[in-house]
Amino acid sequence: MADKRITIAFQGASYAFSEIAARNHFRLPVHTFPRRTFEEVFAAVQDGTARYGIIPIENSLTGSIHRNYDLLLENDLKIVGEQFLRIEQHLIANPGVPIDKVRVIYSHPQALEQCRAFLSTLPDVEPVASYDTAGSVRMIRDERRRDAAAIASRLAAEDYGMNILRSEIEDIPENYTRFLIISPQDSGRSDGDKTSIVFSMKNIPGALFKSLSVFALRDIDLLKIESRPLRGKPWAYIFYLDFVGHMGQKQCINAIRHLQEITTFLKVLGSYVAGGGTDNKGEENE
Amino acid sequence: MADKRITIAFQGASYAFSEIAARNHFRLPVHTFPRRTFEEVFAAVQDGTARYGIIPIENSLTGSIHRNYDLLLENDLKIVGEQFLRIEQHLIANPGVPIDKVRVIYSHPQALEQCRAFLSTLPDVEPVASYDTAGSVRMIRDERRRDAAAIASRLAAEDYGMNILRSEIEDIPENYTRFLIISPQDSGRSDGDKTSIVFSMKNIPGALFKSLSVFALRDIDLLKIESRPLRGKPWAYIFYLDFVGHMGQKQCINAIRHLQEITTFLKVLGSYVAGGGTDNKGEENE
Repeated sequence: MADKRITIAFQGASYAFSEIAARNHFRLPVHTFPRRTFEEVFAAVQDGTARYGIIPIENSLTGSIHRNYDLLLENDLKIVGEQFLRIEQHLIANPGVPIDKVRVIYSHPQALEQCRAFLSTLPDVEPVASYDTAGSVRMIRDERRRDAAAIASRLAAEDYGMNILRSEIEDIPENYTRFLIISPQDSGRSDGDKTSIVFSMKNIPGALFKSLSVFALRDIDLLKIESRPLRGKPWAYIFYLDFVGHMGQKQCINAIRHLQEITTFLKVLGSYVAGGGTDNKGEENE
Repeated sequence: MADKRITIAFQGASYAFSEIAARNHFRLPVHTFPRRTFEEVFAAVQDGTARYGIIPIENSLTGSIHRNYDLLLENDLKIVGEQFLRIEQHLIANPGVPIDKVRVIYSHPQALEQCRAFLSTLPDVEPVASYDTAGSVRMIRDERRRDAAAIASRLAAEDYGMNILRSEIEDIPENYTRFLIISPQDSGRSDGDKTSIVFSMKNIPGALFKSLSVFALRDIDLLKIESRPLRGKPWAYIFYLDFVGHMGQKQCINAIRHLQEITTFLKVLGSYVAGGGTDNKGEENE
């Protein structure tokens, strides 16, 4: 019997936060497809190797990931859903290894960095940089290390059958990433939709004010606005804007038509359920 | 004779991009003061250990660094300047070592990641993760390695007396970071000033539109606008806004007074020369 699970492409190693977000989003068993780069995630969805892709688009501490907005502009995929994930780090060791036997802690430097306050409470322990968080867990498991631990996600600990010595050891707990689900097909209407657009206009005085008026005049609420200067083009900007509503609704179509009168470029990236699942998730499952 | 160089606190190891941006910004010889965290950079400027601090605030690929906006809100320091820096990576080895003898390349995983396309042209070379880029250069120099190279900045190569085997090996050359210079004192007026503010308002329909009207009504150009949702407070946002002008100018004071009528919170982070140096740089130098 063929495997009918949906395939979802993500960037990173196994147990990257993107993969965890994908599993949380679709809930049903899915087949996750790790790719080296975000470009490869888009390519896998475009050529049908994967049904969906998942990409991080902004983080509560580090901001919008412009690179992925660029890829949404360069490719013809639609946003069909979004998923929020809290970034948590855990100290993981082989079962039976107590924390006072740990002398080395392996993880990606970024994860070590995120747990600096915790690590400073363990003065006899040496933090060692490695390529990826889950790879460190697998390594200490394979080598049956009793003097070492790794910092990684709960999912990595569970799937490798390892023990969580200390949970949520990250310095700043208010660390969330917003992920987007991308697909070649548009998402249908439902309750609580939002729409994401990108547009540009010349920086004539009051241009942004005029562009926001097309939403204010129709009582359409804005959920996100961000300007990004275009390199090499002083006074030229692109804007990211999320608003309440679906492009299947009349007032949204009117607002976008009005906006196009004053923009030099405009692309609708997709309409989708805000903070929820895609409307067609699990459609291929039995 | 006492060292009269200005002290500038930055986050990171020696030759971090923050340090390079500081040296570019102040031009005159400065004393750079590496700190472990951004909090420690703010503390060093607050307690007078450093005259200025330099912090990254946004990157052209990865977006605004919300964490540093948070620290600008929590602390009473002013933005007194900004500096743009292109993020470049170089392949660095001991003098006389040709590229075809290199078997291992050390660097921080993020730098290795930024040079993935270049590294894929060297199939017989093993990339190895390390803690920091410049530390990798120092290590291969100290150990006189003839089989190894490191990926780091041009400044690290020059100061350690090492050879650049290949320059600008990063995959995406359009990678710029904007840094802010922070100080306890406000910056005076000059030509080409900009002002950065942070404010919040309830997400009543059209609230953002109304807030931008205070600038449009006075023909004040906006240079940056970004909304950031406040966690745990649905429908509440904070906005980052940069506009043309200095808080010493009447129309800017009027616009801010008008804006305060409709905001729930507002903080002026500082007025400073756009994309240039601080107006008082080198003041302590002879």
